[in-house]
This record gives sequence, C-alpha cells and structure tokens, in this order.
Amino acid sequence: MTKASASDLEVAEKMADAARAAILPYFRQSNLETSNKLQGGYDPVTVADRAAEQAMRSVLAELRPDDGILGEEYGAVESKSGRTWVLDPIDGTRGFVSGTPTWGVLIALGDDSGPIMGVIDQPYIGERFVGHADGAFMTGPLGRTSLSTRRTDALRDAILFTTFPEVGTTAEGDAFRAVAGQVQLTRYGMDCYAYALLAAGQVDLVIEAGLNAYDIQAPIAVIEAAGGVVTDWQGAPAHHGGRALAAANPEIHTAALEILRDF
Amino acid sequence: MTKASASDLEVAEKMADAARAAILPYFRQSNLETSNKLQGGYDPVTVADRAAEQAMRSVLAELRPDDGILGEEYGAVESKSGRTWVLDPIDGTRGFVSGTPTWGVLIALGDDSGPIMGVIDQPYIGERFVGHADGAFMTGPLGRTSLSTRRTDALRDAILFTTFPEVGTTAEGDAFRAVAGQVQLTRYGMDCYAYALLAAGQVDLVIEAGLNAYDIQAPIAVIEAAGGVVTDWQGAPAHHGGRALAAANPEIHTAALEILRDF
Repeated sequence: MTKASASDLEVAEKMADAARAAILPYFRQSNLETSNKLQGGYDPVTVADRAAEQAMRSVLAELRPDDGILGEEYGAVESKSGRTWVLDPIDGTRGFVSGTPTWGVLIALGDDSGPIMGVIDQPYIGERFVGHADGAFMTGPLGRTSLSTRRTDALRDAILFTTFPEVGTTAEGDAFRAVAGQVQLTRYGMDCYAYALLAAGQVDLVIEAGLNAYDIQAPIAVIEAAGGVVTDWQGAPAHHGGRALAAANPEIHTAALEILRDF
Repeated sequence: MTKASASDLEVAEKMADAARAAILPYFRQSNLETSNKLQGGYDPVTVADRAAEQAMRSVLAELRPDDGILGEEYGAVESKSGRTWVLDPIDGTRGFVSGTPTWGVLIALGDDSGPIMGVIDQPYIGERFVGHADGAFMTGPLGRTSLSTRRTDALRDAILFTTFPEVGTTAEGDAFRAVAGQVQLTRYGMDCYAYALLAAGQVDLVIEAGLNAYDIQAPIAVIEAAGGVVTDWQGAPAHHGGRALAAANPEIHTAALEILRDF
C-alpha cells in the first residue's frame, strides 16, 4: 500500500490494530511493570502504555510522515501538513492495572479547530467505536452496527456517567452532584468507555473534569458523528481538555449545561 | 446425557450457556423492556433478567429436579436433596441497562453452610469465572487460565473496589471510606465483576453492603477456590447477604476487617 492509497480511517484502524497487539501481552499478566507518574498521588504508567504509543507512532512514521503527533507518553511532533494525530495509548490506566475491561486506546485526527475523526478501541473485548465524516459505527462481539445517540430530553430520565466520584476540585464535584441529583441513574468507573456507551445510545450524559486533550478528542469525534454534543461546562469547545460535558443530543446537553454553568 | 452422568460443574456450565443465549438478544437492543422494582428509587428489572432465570430453571428441572432453587426473580423452590442452587440472572442490572460489559450471571450451588461451587459469567465478553472443589479457573478472549488471588498484605499497596460510592447506609459509607483512605487505589462501578477480578489476582479488596444471598454466593465460591477470603464485616460467614468483605488473602482480610469491625 502506498502512502497515498491509505485513507485516514485505514491509517487509524492500522494504528488501533498495532496498539492492540502491543498491549494485550501485558493485560492481566504478571509481566506488567508499572511506575507512578504523580508525586503525592497515584497515576500509573505501564510498559503497555509506552509500547502501544510507539506502535502507533511507527504506523504514522510510515503512512503519514507529515502529520503532527500529540501523545500522552512521548510528547509532540510538529505538523507539516496542518493536521495532528492525538493519541492516548491507554485511557484509564488505573482501570487497566486493576484488570477491568473498560480502558481504551484513543486515536483522534484533527487540526486547531478540533477533531474530524476518532477511534475508541477496547482490545480485550475486541470492540472498536469509530466516528468520521461518513458517520459512526462500532465493531465487536456482536458484529458491526452503526452508532446513534439517544433522544432522552429530560434529566429525570437520563443516565449519567463519570469516572470517579470526586470528579475534580471541590467545586467541580459540587457541580457534578448538582446534575446527578436530577437524573435517573448515576454510574462510575468507566473511563473512556462511558463516551463509547454514549455514542452507542446506551447512556445520556458523561461529565468529567481535569482532562487532557488526548483524553477527549477521540470521544468528541465519535460522539459528534453519532449525533451527540460535547462542550466544556460553559458551552465552548472542549477539545483542548479541562472540563467536558458530553450529551446524547442538544436538548439534554442544554439541560445539563444550565446547571453546570453556575459553577 | 442422563441425569446421573452430568457433574455439578457440567450442570452449572449448561445453565450459564442457557443464560447467555437468553440475555444477549436484549443487550444494548431497543427491545429491552425495563420496569422499576423500587418505589422511591430505581431498581430496574428487564425481560432479559426473567428470560435468563427461566432458562436456568429449565436446565435444573431436567438435570437436578430434587435440588432447591433460590433465584432473584422467581423465588424459592424447596430442596429435597439438601442442596440448593442460588441464581442471580443479571447481577448489575443498572450496568446492564447502561450497556456496560461488567454485569454478570451468578450461579452458586450449596447448602445451609454456604456455597461449594460458583460461576460468574459475562456473556458479552464471553468470560466465565468458576470456583469448585478442584480449584478455580476462567475462560475468555485470551483462553483458559487458572485463577489465583494476589499476595498483597498491606493496605497501602491494595486496590479496593465497590459498586457505588454511597455503599449503603451513612455508617456503611463511613466504614468503607475509612478503608479507602488507607489503600493505594479505590475504584467503582463493577458489580459482580469486581469479585471476578479479585479471584483473578487483579485487585485485593471488594467491600459492599446491602447484598442478597444471590449476589454473594457465587463470588464466595469463586474467590475461596482461588485462595481468597470472604466474610461479613465482623468476620462471620457472608453467604446470607448483607455486608461483605472479600479479600485476596488472610493478611489483607485481617487488615481491612480491623477497620470495618469498629463500625
């Protein structure tokens, strides 16, 4: 395959395949070396994170040498094309080191105005959630289906996810709980998988804070291609990270934003 | 196969297979009818819960007609053999209706003194965690492996799971947080899957409250066969439900119990 003949989606899928192959030999294995990136806390990074990002960068070096790269583990490569790939080799490393199946490989392609394509891949289950210009789809144990978000328009009927109950600062936790107090069901612990479930029409809202660009760009692309809306807590673009409000549709987005805006 | 020729493990695996076939046509599908069992709250039960329990009861009617049954959805069948099958067709229905892959089918066999065999099955991923008299094993996307719990003996190195941050009553939440304040990592949201991860040597502690017998009997059997310890918060047997402390080994069990006992 020449460089010109591989579409962006093909490149992204090759990267996701390469990351799967790099990560799975470490998942739930005793060879998993882990180090802590956070002084005074616990932010693990593993050999699997590093191997997966290197594997994805190798695909880009071959097929998209002029594109930029922003990755969690190895920093930035400047773009000569105006386009940049934004990579999180394992989103949810705390879940990964606990053996849960809800971490994911995040791959986004975009420019300064935000992502135009995204992949959320779960190697152990064998699930891949994709959003691009032609729509959104997933592949997994039950085959291939298109992705479409829910039509829930009232908070009292909504299912809300976040990863950990503290959410972020005290004020950010208060804001989250103000929304959680209005919804039907609040659940925790899914990392990027919560965004995949939102794109798949299973849940209505995901609210998080303290994100990096590489945590949220792939979810934005997948969710928007499936019909959802992602902004920060003031309704502005969220692709630089920080606080994110992901919603299944504009109505439920507005309902949650009215609460979050006050915090 | 005659009744006499099917071992208890074969019967349990047939039941798990039948539950898988009954549940998967509803998972993440728009045909999922849900009703709420809890006035003033949200405790969903679905057509999939009911179909799965009926499918498992059909296997027992054929292969173990003299054994008793205690199931979440259809109540008790008295035992003529002294043995009883304890069934939760979908543990983690809130997770199920949200599309997460961490709910499970729970099957236990035991008598008044507790379970002697247990299965935790995750149909979507295709994972099955089994504990019986000859040991503990799992089958899944990466093949078949034996299950063995971790040797972590200090709370500061431990990974702790529970399903939702409130845990139970205010006092129960306080007790949980007293342990959580001592551990390396606390995670939420996994339902029965947390017990499977403990048996698989991925996490060290699971603490929950407000359980029914059918929530905990299969986890007890799987975890004990893998080398772990499960009791209530006073160190007494937990198979009738209520508060559960599941631990990877006697040392970490003692360390957590010393804190929980005071509440």
